[in-house]
Amino acid sequence: MVYAESFGEKANLPLPPGRKFAILTCMDARLDPAKYAGLAEGDAHVIRNAGGRASDDAIRSLVISHKLLATAEWFVIHYTDCGMEYFTNEIIRGLLAKSLATATVDENGWRNVTEEGGSEEAGNISFLTIKNQAESITASAYKATSVGARIHTCVWIYL
Amino acid sequence: MVYAESFGEKANLPLPPGRKFAILTCMDARLDPAKYAGLAEGDAHVIRNAGGRASDDAIRSLVISHKLLATAEWFVIHYTDCGMEYFTNEIIRGLLAKSLATATVDENGWRNVTEEGGSEEAGNISFLTIKNQAESITASAYKATSVGARIHTCVWIYL
Repeated sequence: MVYAESFGEKANLPLPPGRKFAILTCMDARLDPAKYAGLAEGDAHVIRNAGGRASDDAIRSLVISHKLLATAEWFVIHYTDCGMEYFTNEIIRGLLAKSLATATVDENGWRNVTEEGGSEEAGNISFLTIKNQAESITASAYKATSVGARIHTCVWIYL
Repeated sequence: MVYAESFGEKANLPLPPGRKFAILTCMDARLDPAKYAGLAEGDAHVIRNAGGRASDDAIRSLVISHKLLATAEWFVIHYTDCGMEYFTNEIIRGLLAKSLATATVDENGWRNVTEEGGSEEAGNISFLTIKNQAESITASAYKATSVGARIHTCVWIYL
Protein backbone atom coordinates (compact mmCIF):
# COMPACT_ATOMS: atom_id res chain seq x y z
CA MET A 1 0.00 0.00 0.00
CA VAL A 2 1.31 3.41 -0.98
CA TYR A 3 -0.03 5.02 2.22
CA ALA A 4 1.67 2.42 4.44
CA GLU A 5 4.95 2.94 2.60
CA SER A 6 4.74 6.69 3.07
CA PHE A 7 3.85 6.43 6.76
CA GLY A 8 7.53 6.54 7.69
CA GLU A 9 8.28 8.42 10.89
CA LYS A 10 4.59 8.73 11.72
CA ALA A 11 4.94 5.20 13.05
CA ASN A 12 6.72 6.75 16.03
CA LEU A 13 4.00 9.28 16.87
CA PRO A 14 3.12 9.28 20.56
CA LEU A 15 -0.30 8.03 21.68
CA PRO A 16 -1.56 11.31 23.27
CA PRO A 17 -2.91 13.75 20.65
CA GLY A 18 -0.28 16.39 19.89
CA ARG A 19 -2.78 19.26 19.69
CA LYS A 20 -4.58 18.17 22.87
CA PHE A 21 -8.12 18.20 21.59
CA ALA A 22 -10.90 15.83 20.59
CA ILE A 23 -13.60 16.25 17.97
CA LEU A 24 -17.04 14.67 18.28
CA THR A 25 -18.87 14.65 14.97
CA CYS A 26 -21.18 12.67 12.70
CA MET A 27 -20.33 9.49 10.75
CA ASP A 28 -21.70 11.21 7.60
CA ALA A 29 -19.72 10.10 4.53
CA ARG A 30 -19.56 13.70 3.27
CA LEU A 31 -17.52 14.81 6.28
CA ASP A 32 -13.75 14.46 6.45
CA PRO A 33 -12.77 15.84 9.87
CA ALA A 34 -9.04 15.67 9.11
CA LYS A 35 -9.64 17.93 6.12
CA TYR A 36 -12.21 20.32 7.58
CA ALA A 37 -10.26 20.76 10.82
CA GLY A 38 -6.82 20.63 9.20
CA LEU A 39 -5.54 17.61 11.14
CA ALA A 40 -2.37 15.64 10.52
CA GLU A 41 -1.90 12.14 11.93
CA GLY A 42 -1.23 12.43 15.66
CA ASP A 43 -3.07 15.74 16.14
CA ALA A 44 -6.45 14.98 17.71
CA HIS A 45 -8.90 12.29 18.76
CA VAL A 46 -11.85 11.96 16.41
CA ILE A 47 -15.05 10.37 17.72
CA ARG A 48 -17.85 9.79 15.24
CA ASN A 49 -21.34 8.32 15.46
CA ALA A 50 -24.71 8.84 13.82
CA GLY A 51 -25.43 12.52 14.47
CA GLY A 52 -22.24 13.36 16.39
CA ARG A 53 -24.24 12.87 19.57
CA ALA A 54 -22.83 12.92 23.11
CA SER A 55 -24.07 9.37 23.63
CA ASP A 56 -22.89 7.29 26.59
CA ASP A 57 -20.29 5.78 24.31
CA ALA A 58 -19.01 9.17 23.15
CA ILE A 59 -18.76 10.20 26.81
CA ARG A 60 -16.81 6.98 27.53
CA SER A 61 -14.41 7.88 24.73
CA LEU A 62 -14.08 11.53 25.81
CA VAL A 63 -13.40 10.61 29.43
CA ILE A 64 -10.56 8.33 28.28
CA SER A 65 -9.35 11.08 25.94
CA HIS A 66 -9.13 13.65 28.74
CA LYS A 67 -8.20 11.54 31.76
CA LEU A 68 -5.53 9.33 30.20
CA LEU A 69 -4.52 11.06 26.99
CA ALA A 70 -4.52 14.71 28.02
CA THR A 71 -7.00 16.36 25.69
CA ALA A 72 -8.06 19.69 27.21
CA GLU A 73 -10.66 20.83 24.67
CA TRP A 74 -13.51 19.04 22.96
CA PHE A 75 -15.23 20.25 19.83
CA VAL A 76 -18.78 19.02 19.21
CA ILE A 77 -19.45 19.55 15.52
CA HIS A 78 -22.92 19.15 14.03
CA TYR A 79 -24.14 20.53 10.71
CA THR A 80 -27.27 21.29 8.78
CA ASP A 81 -28.93 18.70 6.51
CA CYS A 82 -27.81 15.84 8.77
CA GLY A 83 -29.50 12.51 8.02
CA MET A 84 -30.58 12.31 11.67
CA GLU A 85 -33.17 15.01 10.99
CA TYR A 86 -35.05 12.82 8.51
CA PHE A 87 -36.51 10.09 10.70
CA THR A 88 -37.67 9.31 14.22
CA ASN A 89 -37.41 6.36 16.61
CA GLU A 90 -40.92 5.34 15.59
CA ILE A 91 -40.11 5.39 11.88
CA ILE A 92 -36.92 3.29 12.01
CA ARG A 93 -38.33 0.87 14.59
CA GLY A 94 -41.43 0.38 12.43
CA LEU A 95 -39.31 -0.30 9.35
CA LEU A 96 -36.99 -2.72 11.18
CA ALA A 97 -39.91 -4.63 12.70
CA LYS A 98 -40.97 -5.69 9.20
CA SER A 99 -37.59 -6.08 7.48
CA LEU A 100 -33.86 -5.60 8.13
CA ALA A 101 -33.18 -4.84 4.45
CA THR A 102 -32.41 -1.26 3.42
CA ALA A 103 -35.53 0.90 3.12
CA THR A 104 -36.24 3.52 0.49
CA VAL A 105 -37.44 7.09 0.78
CA ASP A 106 -39.40 9.49 -1.43
CA GLU A 107 -41.73 12.43 -1.01
CA ASN A 108 -44.16 10.18 0.86
CA GLY A 109 -41.54 9.18 3.43
CA TRP A 110 -39.70 5.96 4.24
CA ARG A 111 -40.95 2.50 3.24
CA ASN A 112 -39.64 -1.04 3.16
CA VAL A 113 -38.93 -2.63 -0.20
CA THR A 114 -39.54 -6.11 1.20
CA GLU A 115 -41.50 -7.14 4.27
CA GLU A 116 -39.79 -10.25 5.54
CA GLY A 117 -37.17 -11.01 8.18
CA GLY A 118 -37.89 -8.11 10.51
CA SER A 119 -36.83 -7.74 14.13
CA GLU A 120 -38.37 -6.08 17.17
CA GLU A 121 -34.94 -5.73 18.82
CA ALA A 122 -34.65 -2.09 17.84
CA GLY A 123 -37.49 -1.32 20.21
CA ASN A 124 -34.79 -1.05 22.86
CA ILE A 125 -32.57 1.32 20.89
CA SER A 126 -32.86 5.08 21.25
CA PHE A 127 -31.64 6.29 17.87
CA LEU A 128 -30.80 9.82 19.11
CA THR A 129 -32.42 11.47 16.12
CA ILE A 130 -32.36 15.24 15.76
CA LYS A 131 -35.47 17.40 15.72
CA ASN A 132 -33.70 20.73 16.08
CA GLN A 133 -29.97 21.20 15.43
CA ALA A 134 -29.61 24.15 17.80
CA GLU A 135 -31.20 22.21 20.65
CA SER A 136 -29.30 19.01 19.90
CA ILE A 137 -25.88 20.62 19.85
CA THR A 138 -26.60 22.43 23.09
CA ALA A 139 -27.78 19.18 24.66
CA SER A 140 -24.69 17.32 23.42
CA ALA A 141 -22.35 19.97 24.77
CA TYR A 142 -24.20 20.13 28.09
CA LYS A 143 -24.13 16.38 28.53
CA ALA A 144 -20.40 16.33 27.84
CA THR A 145 -19.81 19.11 30.38
CA SER A 146 -21.57 17.20 33.11
CA VAL A 147 -18.97 14.45 33.19
CA GLY A 148 -15.75 16.38 33.48
CA ALA A 149 -14.87 18.06 30.21
CA ARG A 150 -12.68 21.12 30.44
CA ILE A 151 -13.72 23.33 27.55
CA HIS A 152 -16.34 22.92 24.83
CA THR A 153 -16.78 24.65 21.57
CA CYS A 154 -19.61 23.99 19.16
CA VAL A 155 -19.10 24.64 15.49
CA TRP A 156 -21.60 24.42 12.66
CA ILE A 157 -20.67 23.33 9.20
CA TYR A 158 -23.07 24.21 6.44
CA LEU A 159 -22.91 21.57 3.78
CA MET B 1 -11.36 28.74 4.77
CA VAL B 2 -9.48 27.21 1.89
CA TYR B 3 -11.15 23.82 2.33
CA ALA B 4 -14.65 25.32 2.30
CA GLU B 5 -13.81 27.26 -0.86
CA SER B 6 -12.54 24.13 -2.57
CA PHE B 7 -15.57 22.05 -1.54
CA GLY B 8 -17.41 23.05 -4.72
CA GLU B 9 -19.57 20.32 -6.18
CA LYS B 10 -19.07 18.11 -3.15
CA ALA B 11 -21.82 20.21 -1.58
CA ASN B 12 -24.23 18.28 -3.78
CA LEU B 13 -23.08 14.81 -2.73
CA PRO B 14 -25.99 12.53 -1.81
CA LEU B 15 -26.46 11.45 1.80
CA PRO B 16 -26.07 7.65 1.27
CA PRO B 17 -22.39 6.61 1.07
CA GLY B 18 -21.37 6.13 -2.56
CA ARG B 19 -19.26 3.05 -1.88
CA LYS B 20 -21.94 1.48 0.32
CA PHE B 21 -19.78 0.60 3.29
CA ALA B 22 -19.12 1.72 6.84
CA ILE B 23 -15.89 1.61 8.82
CA LEU B 24 -15.83 1.17 12.60
CA THR B 25 -12.45 2.11 14.06
CA CYS B 26 -10.66 3.76 16.97
CA MET B 27 -10.60 7.50 17.79
CA ASP B 28 -6.77 7.27 17.95
CA ALA B 29 -5.18 10.51 16.71
CA ARG B 30 -2.63 8.54 14.69
CA LEU B 31 -5.32 7.02 12.48
CA ASP B 32 -6.73 8.79 9.44
CA PRO B 33 -9.37 6.41 8.02
CA ALA B 34 -9.88 8.51 4.89
CA LYS B 35 -6.19 8.10 4.11
CA TYR B 36 -5.68 4.49 5.17
CA ALA B 37 -8.84 3.32 3.39
CA GLY B 38 -8.52 5.70 0.44
CA LEU B 39 -11.84 7.51 0.96
CA ALA B 40 -13.07 10.64 -0.76
CA GLU B 41 -15.89 12.72 0.69
CA GLY B 42 -19.17 10.89 0.12
CA ASP B 43 -17.64 7.39 0.00
CA ALA B 44 -18.31 5.72 3.37
CA HIS B 45 -19.64 6.14 6.88
CA VAL B 46 -16.88 6.34 9.48
CA ILE B 47 -17.75 5.50 13.08
CA ARG B 48 -15.05 6.02 15.69
CA ASN B 49 -14.83 5.53 19.44
CA ALA B 50 -12.22 4.56 22.00
CA GLY B 51 -11.01 1.18 20.76
CA GLY B 52 -13.23 0.92 17.67
CA ARG B 53 -15.59 -1.21 19.75
CA ALA B 54 -19.00 -2.47 18.66
CA SER B 55 -20.61 -0.61 21.56
CA ASP B 56 -24.36 -0.09 21.74
CA ASP B 57 -23.82 3.33 20.19
CA ALA B 58 -21.75 1.93 17.32
CA ILE B 59 -24.53 -0.61 16.72
CA ARG B 60 -27.10 2.24 16.72
CA SER B 61 -25.01 4.02 14.09
CA LEU B 62 -24.47 0.89 11.99
CA VAL B 63 -28.17 0.01 12.02
CA ILE B 64 -28.99 3.51 10.70
CA SER B 65 -26.17 3.17 8.17
CA HIS B 66 -27.56 -0.08 6.77
CA LYS B 67 -31.31 0.32 7.16
CA LEU B 68 -31.69 3.91 5.95
CA LEU B 69 -28.49 4.69 4.08
CA ALA B 70 -27.84 1.43 2.25
CA THR B 71 -24.40 0.33 3.43
CA ALA B 72 -23.99 -3.36 2.68
CA GLU B 73 -20.56 -4.01 4.21
CA TRP B 74 -19.04 -3.00 7.52
CA PHE B 75 -15.32 -3.03 8.24
CA VAL B 76 -14.28 -3.29 11.89
CA ILE B 77 -10.68 -2.09 12.05
CA HIS B 78 -8.57 -2.49 15.17
CA TYR B 79 -4.79 -2.32 15.38
CA THR B 80 -1.89 -3.23 17.59
CA ASP B 81 -0.56 -0.84 20.24
CA CYS B 82 -4.04 0.59 20.85
CA GLY B 83 -4.30 2.76 23.98
CA MET B 84 -7.20 0.59 25.15
CA GLU B 85 -4.70 -2.17 25.95
CA TYR B 86 -2.95 -0.09 28.59
CA PHE B 87 -5.57 0.21 31.33
CA THR B 88 -8.57 -1.52 32.87
CA ASN B 89 -11.95 -0.43 34.25
CA GLU B 90 -10.49 -0.63 37.75
CA ILE B 91 -7.51 1.60 36.89
CA ILE B 92 -9.44 4.44 35.24
CA ARG B 93 -12.27 4.32 37.78
CA GLY B 94 -9.74 4.49 40.60
CA LEU B 95 -7.99 7.48 39.02
CA LEU B 96 -11.27 9.33 38.35
CA ALA B 97 -12.53 8.72 41.89
CA LYS B 98 -9.66 10.87 43.18
CA SER B 99 -9.36 13.50 40.43
CA LEU B 100 -10.80 14.38 37.02
CA ALA B 101 -7.52 15.99 35.91
CA THR B 102 -5.34 14.19 33.38
CA ALA B 103 -3.25 11.41 34.93
CA THR B 104 0.32 10.50 34.09
CA VAL B 105 1.93 7.16 33.31
CA ASP B 106 5.40 5.70 33.65
CA GLU B 107 6.97 2.28 34.14
CA ASN B 108 5.15 1.98 37.48
CA GLY B 109 1.75 2.52 35.86
CA TRP B 110 -0.85 5.27 35.96
CA ARG B 111 -1.10 7.83 38.74
CA ASN B 112 -2.92 11.08 39.44
CA VAL B 113 -0.91 14.30 39.53
CA THR B 114 -3.42 15.91 41.89
CA GLU B 115 -5.92 14.29 44.20
CA GLU B 116 -8.85 16.66 44.39
CA GLY B 117 -12.18 16.97 42.63
CA GLY B 118 -12.71 13.31 41.83
CA SER B 119 -15.98 11.61 40.90
CA GLU B 120 -17.43 8.15 41.47
CA GLU B 121 -19.70 8.50 38.43
CA ALA B 122 -17.39 6.41 36.27
CA GLY B 123 -18.27 3.41 38.42
CA ASN B 124 -21.23 3.01 36.06
CA ILE B 125 -19.16 3.20 32.87
CA SER B 126 -17.81 0.09 31.18
CA PHE B 127 -14.75 1.44 29.39
CA LEU B 128 -14.56 -1.48 26.92
CA THR B 129 -10.83 -1.86 27.34
CA ILE B 130 -8.93 -4.47 25.33
CA LYS B 131 -7.07 -7.38 26.87
CA ASN B 132 -6.48 -9.28 23.66
CA GLN B 133 -6.84 -7.72 20.20
CA ALA B 134 -7.72 -11.00 18.47
CA GLU B 135 -10.52 -11.68 20.94
CA SER B 136 -11.79 -8.11 20.92
CA ILE B 137 -12.08 -7.82 17.16
CA THR B 138 -13.88 -11.15 16.99
CA ALA B 139 -16.25 -10.01 19.73
CA SER B 140 -16.88 -6.70 17.98
CA ALA B 141 -17.61 -8.38 14.67
CA TYR B 142 -19.86 -10.98 16.30
CA LYS B 143 -21.83 -8.37 18.19
CA ALA B 144 -22.33 -6.42 14.99
CA THR B 145 -23.53 -9.55 13.15
CA SER B 146 -26.15 -10.27 15.77
CA VAL B 147 -28.16 -7.17 14.95
CA GLY B 148 -28.54 -7.43 11.21
CA ALA B 149 -25.28 -6.62 9.47
CA ARG B 150 -24.87 -8.07 6.02
CA ILE B 151 -21.14 -8.66 5.63
CA HIS B 152 -18.21 -8.08 7.99
CA THR B 153 -14.55 -7.90 7.38
CA CYS B 154 -11.95 -7.40 10.08
CA VAL B 155 -8.68 -5.79 9.18
CA TRP B 156 -5.61 -5.22 11.32
CA ILE B 157 -3.38 -2.25 10.92
CA TYR B 158 0.07 -2.50 12.40
CA LEU B 159 1.21 0.90 13.49
